[in-house]
Amino acid sequence: MYPKNAWYVACAPGEIDEKPLGRTVCGERIVFFRGPDGKAAGLEDWCPHRGAPLSLGRVVEGKLVCGYHGLEMGCDGKTVAMPGQRVRGFPALASYPVIERYGFVWVWPGEAAKADPALLPKLAWAEDPAWTFGGGMFHVQCDYRLMIDNLMDLTHEKYVHATSIGQQELDEVPAYTTSEGDVVITRREMSGVKAPPFWQAAMRGNGLDPEQTVDRWQRCRFVPPSSVLIDVGVALAGQGGFDAPAAVKTSGIVVDLITPETETSIWYFWGLARNFRPEDKALTASIREAQGKVFTEDLEMLESQQRNLSAQPERKLLSLNTDLGGVQARRIVERLVAQEQGQAVAA
Amino acid sequence: MYPKNAWYVACAPGEIDEKPLGRTVCGERIVFFRGPDGKAAGLEDWCPHRGAPLSLGRVVEGKLVCGYHGLEMGCDGKTVAMPGQRVRGFPALASYPVIERYGFVWVWPGEAAKADPALLPKLAWAEDPAWTFGGGMFHVQCDYRLMIDNLMDLTHEKYVHATSIGQQELDEVPAYTTSEGDVVITRREMSGVKAPPFWQAAMRGNGLDPEQTVDRWQRCRFVPPSSVLIDVGVALAGQGGFDAPAAVKTSGIVVDLITPETETSIWYFWGLARNFRPEDKALTASIREAQGKVFTEDLEMLESQQRNLSAQPERKLLSLNTDLGGVQARRIVERLVAQEQGQAVAA
Amino acid sequence: MYPKNAWYVACAPGEIDEKPLGRTVCGERIVFFRGPDGKAAGLEDWCPHRGAPLSLGRVVEGKLVCGYHGLEMGCDGKTVAMPGQRVRGFPALASYPVIERYGFVWVWPGEAAKADPALLPKLAWAEDPAWTFGGGMFHVQCDYRLMIDNLMDLTHEKYVHATSIGQQELDEVPAYTTSEGDVVITRREMSGVKAPPFWQAAMRGNGLDPEQTVDRWQRCRFVPPSSVLIDVGVALAGQGGFDAPAAVKTSGIVVDLITPETETSIWYFWGLARNFRPEDKALTASIREAQGKVFTEDLEMLESQQRNLSAQPERKLLSLNTDLGGVQARRIVERLVAQEQGQAVAA
Repeated sequence: MYPKNAWYVACAPGEIDEKPLGRTVCGERIVFFRGPDGKAAGLEDWCPHRGAPLSLGRVVEGKLVCGYHGLEMGCDGKTVAMPGQRVRGFPALASYPVIERYGFVWVWPGEAAKADPALLPKLAWAEDPAWTFGGGMFHVQCDYRLMIDNLMDLTHEKYVHATSIGQQELDEVPAYTTSEGDVVITRREMSGVKAPPFWQAAMRGNGLDPEQTVDRWQRCRFVPPSSVLIDVGVALAGQGGFDAPAAVKTSGIVVDLITPETETSIWYFWGLARNFRPEDKALTASIREAQGKVFTEDLEMLESQQRNLSAQPERKLLSLNTDLGGVQARRIVERLVAQEQGQAVAA
Repeated sequence: MYPKNAWYVACAPGEIDEKPLGRTVCGERIVFFRGPDGKAAGLEDWCPHRGAPLSLGRVVEGKLVCGYHGLEMGCDGKTVAMPGQRVRGFPALASYPVIERYGFVWVWPGEAAKADPALLPKLAWAEDPAWTFGGGMFHVQCDYRLMIDNLMDLTHEKYVHATSIGQQELDEVPAYTTSEGDVVITRREMSGVKAPPFWQAAMRGNGLDPEQTVDRWQRCRFVPPSSVLIDVGVALAGQGGFDAPAAVKTSGIVVDLITPETETSIWYFWGLARNFRPEDKALTASIREAQGKVFTEDLEMLESQQRNLSAQPERKLLSLNTDLGGVQARRIVERLVAQEQGQAVAA
Repeated sequence: MYPKNAWYVACAPGEIDEKPLGRTVCGERIVFFRGPDGKAAGLEDWCPHRGAPLSLGRVVEGKLVCGYHGLEMGCDGKTVAMPGQRVRGFPALASYPVIERYGFVWVWPGEAAKADPALLPKLAWAEDPAWTFGGGMFHVQCDYRLMIDNLMDLTHEKYVHATSIGQQELDEVPAYTTSEGDVVITRREMSGVKAPPFWQAAMRGNGLDPEQTVDRWQRCRFVPPSSVLIDVGVALAGQGGFDAPAAVKTSGIVVDLITPETETSIWYFWGLARNFRPEDKALTASIREAQGKVFTEDLEMLESQQRNLSAQPERKLLSLNTDLGGVQARRIVERLVAQEQGQAVAA
């Protein structure tokens, strides 16, 4: 249950620099590679000759060469050549719209004719030299909506991430959910608190005294179909929180770009964008490592939850006020899926 | 095909001392934990909030706290509290009757109203200070009835356990099967034989000369739904065998408590109860290790047999005189299951 | 989709010298063992007593003794004895015709009455003392027909085996396919080329200068249901190629005997028969190792291709001129299967 007419992150750019990459997105088995001039492309991962995966081949001068018998495939899904063969009548492969932007390779797994670059999520920080980004990718066995729920209700930090970003105030201070069009926003502000270990390290990295009392904020923004971008940060207490001057705060954006692989598995691209000491690569590496550890703590919970839900698919879940962000996000993707299917039926 | 209205061993007490335990019994996913005063409890392993397994949580002051968002669950399946929520309307979890006795935690996976402590098997040795017990648990991929067959026909010892408890006389001396109500008993007595290695070690541990000729006995008692308790021992030859004076014999009870996980997998709790040198912990440990090795020899056979039976489920097996104990045990559990289903239909 | 009325390689003789072997052939679970006088036999891998696999037992004086309760089985599928039992009424097991010849144990998994030793493929080299053979076995997760395709179209060597037996000329020189009855032959001759690494090593082993220009040939012979025997070799250029005198050539027969396990898995027996320095065991070992490495390169491709085909079973493949050997081989096995099923329906 996911919209297919949407942009999803297929991979990090480096994953296709050396060789093609086979990856399933929304149930579609796709090979990603770099065509002429290094432009990223996506095709069915199926050699029209004998059905071997083209992703086992290699790229030669912008053509994807099948690793079995040498068929040469172009970025448009048409066979360019094959040793000793006339290829004009070979059936074409489906070609998936692909865009490289914001430090990611994006794919549109649905109807190619509807792919519009304007529908990409806006990630302004990714094109602003005052910012930098570090992150990673996890392959997780759960419905992508369970990950959205997880990210739109950060009270779980107190329990799942007790030793890093969790703190008492997370479930004492209520969160408020609003929406702007199809963007859902859940806000929580904790005033006059002690920073938890992850944020203490970030304050230290940013030249602030980690023992000072702070105001801490979290603003989770769900952007359909499956991105959650979270403004997070701490400012010295009473200086305006989110709006405090840069000199007294440490902040960033937790980036969560979730790509369904199947109904119950995802490619989860995560990271942190920040605008303090962007040139400091050692800091980027240490934040990335710390964040990777924190996000790893979610995996067992999400995969176990998925196994429970799969065993009792009819059983109802509660939708509490803290779940409101996730619930609204689900309603939006359900509406998008229904629209998509309605259009498909009408067409 | 197992009775659900029955007591089964859920776990050893120590398995829930530090944290909750998720374990499937007769197809029911259950979380076991210690409530107030350390009393063992069993609930559906499902958080009513979002379906996460409660077994990933922790126990705080006798309440089971969900590891995801902190919902606090009581032993009765009712939500006690949740940060920032009114929980009165939360749906209750099914609660499974649990008793801790005889050194095990027992669960009744069927209709709670029918759970009667008087239906627990009687394990008198477990409450007699003259006795001690050592054992372990295996997770085995076979129908629990294959394990019962195994234990009610010990001629297999000669083939499967040739180097430990097997001996020539096992299939030369016939066994006799009788029943007392729903208890099935298969007896074999081997007179004037040499003790096999396991029993030689036990004789040595008990101060007897292991080279002496002995009378050896095995009395397998099947107690529904799935316990097999086996009086085993050797006495110096001609001294009365099972009834010989304590000074000239070494004996014990092989304890086999079998808990179906699914139709084709079990939690197998095994061990030896003995009344010689009960205070000798080193002896307990060495017997436990030796018995564990012997019982491990059965696993490949049982799991392979299960794979064969699953591949040809309609194929008939033979029921020979040596199989009589297992055959009668099956008839009893089949009758119990039929009764249970009949009652369920009538109700 | 495989003929069952045919001879397939069950195992190498050494696999049943020490103990019985359980192996599934064409969906039949079979135990292979050596009966009286060491003669190979094949029976259903199912003890008539309780369904345990007989392959977990041992062979005593030519009888297969069940490892569970000691039932003794004869080569004809009839129970010979069991401790304490009269076995005359025990149901017989299906017995599969088995022949040991050409250095392999062959089994006929279909109707025993139709098994005719004259239908074995003829492997003359295996009985000629001027020749020797070295090889191995792989368990591969693919339809046996994908392996036949692989072996009947050696243009893949250029891509899959680029560093060992691949060379540029493989897809520059066309191959020609003919048939003689049910034997399909695909020939390729490359004249005046440099030998690739595998053949350079073989030339060196045979006392030829590996830097010399050579004529290279490949003659793939498909013999139903699933053998591919490939005459391969190099001769110093211009000396007659395949027909050149022995002193100026190095040649052999690539032996591929493919046994379906299931519809999508095989036991693949491969090797090289050669008539140069047949007494040189070190050379046999080094060729075997090199060939094993080369053939390992095919496995990922074949298993990935199978996963792709299983995911889209209706999707059509191309049949190009280079595929002709495989295509004709498929037509023959399809006809054999249809005949077999027609006869089964008529009977």
